[in-house]
Amino acid sequence: MSLHDHPRFPRGFRCASRNVGLKPTARDLTLFVSDVDAAAAAVFTRSHFPGAPIILGRETIRGGVLRGIIANSKCSNVATGEEGVRRARRMAVAAATELGTTPDRILVSSTGVIGVPLPIEKIEAGVVGMQDDLSDDPLLGAEGIMTTDTHPKALSIPVGDATITWVAKGSGMIEPNMATMLAYIFTDAALDAATLDALLREAVHTTFNMLSVDTDTSTSDTCVLMANGLSGAVDIADFRAALHAGCLRMTEILARDGEGAEHLIRATVRGARSEDDARRVAKSLINSPLVKTMVHGADPNVGRLLMAVGKCLDVPVIAERTDAWINGFPVVREGARLSFDDAEVRATLSHEVVDLVVDLGVGAAQATAFGCDLTRGYVDENASYYSS
Amino acid sequence: MSLHDHPRFPRGFRCASRNVGLKPTARDLTLFVSDVDAAAAAVFTRSHFPGAPIILGRETIRGGVLRGIIANSKCSNVATGEEGVRRARRMAVAAATELGTTPDRILVSSTGVIGVPLPIEKIEAGVVGMQDDLSDDPLLGAEGIMTTDTHPKALSIPVGDATITWVAKGSGMIEPNMATMLAYIFTDAALDAATLDALLREAVHTTFNMLSVDTDTSTSDTCVLMANGLSGAVDIADFRAALHAGCLRMTEILARDGEGAEHLIRATVRGARSEDDARRVAKSLINSPLVKTMVHGADPNVGRLLMAVGKCLDVPVIAERTDAWINGFPVVREGARLSFDDAEVRATLSHEVVDLVVDLGVGAAQATAFGCDLTRGYVDENASYYSS
Repeated sequence: MSLHDHPRFPRGFRCASRNVGLKPTARDLTLFVSDVDAAAAAVFTRSHFPGAPIILGRETIRGGVLRGIIANSKCSNVATGEEGVRRARRMAVAAATELGTTPDRILVSSTGVIGVPLPIEKIEAGVVGMQDDLSDDPLLGAEGIMTTDTHPKALSIPVGDATITWVAKGSGMIEPNMATMLAYIFTDAALDAATLDALLREAVHTTFNMLSVDTDTSTSDTCVLMANGLSGAVDIADFRAALHAGCLRMTEILARDGEGAEHLIRATVRGARSEDDARRVAKSLINSPLVKTMVHGADPNVGRLLMAVGKCLDVPVIAERTDAWINGFPVVREGARLSFDDAEVRATLSHEVVDLVVDLGVGAAQATAFGCDLTRGYVDENASYYSS
Repeated sequence: MSLHDHPRFPRGFRCASRNVGLKPTARDLTLFVSDVDAAAAAVFTRSHFPGAPIILGRETIRGGVLRGIIANSKCSNVATGEEGVRRARRMAVAAATELGTTPDRILVSSTGVIGVPLPIEKIEAGVVGMQDDLSDDPLLGAEGIMTTDTHPKALSIPVGDATITWVAKGSGMIEPNMATMLAYIFTDAALDAATLDALLREAVHTTFNMLSVDTDTSTSDTCVLMANGLSGAVDIADFRAALHAGCLRMTEILARDGEGAEHLIRATVRGARSEDDARRVAKSLINSPLVKTMVHGADPNVGRLLMAVGKCLDVPVIAERTDAWINGFPVVREGARLSFDDAEVRATLSHEVVDLVVDLGVGAAQATAFGCDLTRGYVDENASYYSS
C-alpha cells in the first residue's frame, strides 16, 4: 500500500472552492460532490456545545446517503442558538439547489471563530455557479477549509481498483473525542452505510482520537466517509488496512501542522494493563506542556517523561518497572533516569519527528498518541486569533 | 482578619538560607526551625514517581512531630532510585546534627531538575554552622527554595494571640493533587497533629488543590503545617478561617507567578450538580491553552469559554442553561454568545486579575480554580530549563 505523491479523487468525486467574502481574499467556501448518491457515515465532536452544523449533521447522516458537502471557514456557527441551526439549514438548501439534489443529502460544516453569526447571505449568493468550477484536484477543496493550517491537507491511497482520498483541516483546538476538526474521506469502493460506520469508528479510535494539539476539544469536529460505489466491490480487509493507514498519516500531518509546531511527537505506551490505560498515559505525555517545551527546546530534561506518566493517577504504574526511550535512545530504566551523553539526547530530540516510548512493564496492552511541540508561535497565534 | 504587610514568624520559629554550591551564587539550602518540638501534619504529591524526599517524608510525618525542615533547590532528588532515598536520609541526619535533634523530626524537601543525583556532600558540608545564621525573616527561607519563582513568597495572618505564617515556592510543573510544590505553614498556636491534619486537608482541598499553572503535577509537591504551641490555645473556628484565607492567598500568589504569567485567572463555576463537577469544569477553564492565550492577548474570543466547558464530557451540562461572565461582564447567556462591545471586553480581559464565572444552571454546587495566562515566557523558560 502506498500514498499517492499527489492526491487525486476517487471516480465520480470533485470539488470547488471560492472566496465569497467571509475572509478578505482567501478561499472560504468549498463544495465536495459525488456524481451519484454515496453511502455515508460520520462521527462528530462530543462537546456539550456542538456547533449548529453538528446538530444538523447528526440528523442528516441518519439517512446514510450523501451527494455532497458544503463547508465554510472563518466562522464556525457555534453558540449561535436556534438562529444558527436555521442558517445551517439554509446552507444545505443553497448547496442542494446548486447541485440539483435535496438538502438531506448535503452535509454542512463550518469552521472558524465561535459565537459569531454566520453570514448566510454571502454563502447563499456565493455558492451560485460553483457547479461550473468543479475540479478533480482535492487540494482546491482542502484550501477552502483552511483556518490556521499552514498548508492544504489531502492524500490518496489505492485499494484494488478503488481509491480512498482524505481531505482535512485542523491545527488548533484539537483533542478530538470523535474525530478531528474536519476530515472528509471519499472512496469509489462499494460499501454500505453500516459497514462504513463500523470501519470509520474503528479507524478513528486509534488515529484521529489519539491526536491532540492543545487538549482543547473543538465544538465542530466532523469526520465523514462517503462511498459512491463507482469502482464496485473491494476486499474489506484491504479497505480496512488502507483506511487505517490514511487516517494515521492524516493524523500525523495534522499534528505536525499544529499551531506553531516544529515537531511531530508520537508517544507510544506499551506494557500497560489495558488499552485504555495505555491511551491515557500516551495522551498525558503528548499533552504535557513540559514535555512539549522540552522537545521544542531539544532540552534533555527527560525526568519530565516520568512526571507525565506519574500524574496519571487512575492508571496502575509501578515506578520500578517503568522504562523510557527517546527515538530509540534509552533514557529511563526501572523508574530511574539513566546517565547519558547530553549531546546525544539533544541531537535525537532535535529530529523533526520525536518518538517517545514508555514501557510500563505491567501488562501487554499498548497505544500511540500524536501531538506536537509547544512554541512561541502557538502563543502568538492564539493570543490574537479572534482579532486577526 | 488581615494579612501582615511584611510576613513574620510565629513565636519560636526561625530560618536560615545559604549558597552551598548547588547553584552558582543564589541561596540554595534552607533550614526552618522551631525552638521546641512542634505537632505537624503534611500532604504530598500523588504522583506515581514521588521524589526520594516524599518517600522519606511520608515516613517522617507519621510521628506527628517536627523540629525543622531542610530544603534545597536546583536538584529535586527524583527518579534517583534507592541511592536517592539514602541521600535524603543523610540530609535529615545532617540537619538533625546541626540542630541537636533526631532525624525523625526533620522533614526533607528537594526541588529542581528531575533525575540528577543529589550532591549530598555539598549539603552536608554546607549545613554546618547554619544554626548561627537563624533569623526571624521568613523571606530569607523563601528565597532559599526558589527555582523559577520571580520573587520569594511568604505571608502571615494573626489568629488571636497566635500567628500563622506561610512560606512557599512554585511556578511551573504545578497542578497539585495533594499540595503545591513546596508550602510550609508555621504557627505558634497549640493544636495536636490529628487536628492539624484534618484542618490542613480541608484547607488544601479548595486552595492549593485547585491551582494549576500547566496541568503538570510535580513529583515533589509537599505542604507541611507545624504548630509549636508557644502561644497556647486558639479558637478553632478562627484558626480554620485564617488557615483557609492564607492558603487561598498563597494559591493566588503562586498562580500569578506561574512561569511567564502576566495575569492571575480565577475560574468560578456555580450552579453545578456537585462540587466535583464544579471543580472539573473550573479546572478545565484554567487549564485550556486557548482560554489562557485569550487572556494573554486580551482577545475577546469568548466562545473558548464554552469550548472549555463543552469538553468536560463526564459532567452534566445543558448548553441552553449555561451563562458566563468575564470580570462581571456578561458574555454568554443560555449557551449563546451575547453581542457586546469588543473594546469593553478587551479592557476587562486586560486586568491583572481576570475572573471567569460560568453558571451551569443545573444545581447549587460551586468551586473556584486558580491559574494564569500562557505566554512566550512560559515557552522560553521551559524550552531550556534543564540546561540553563
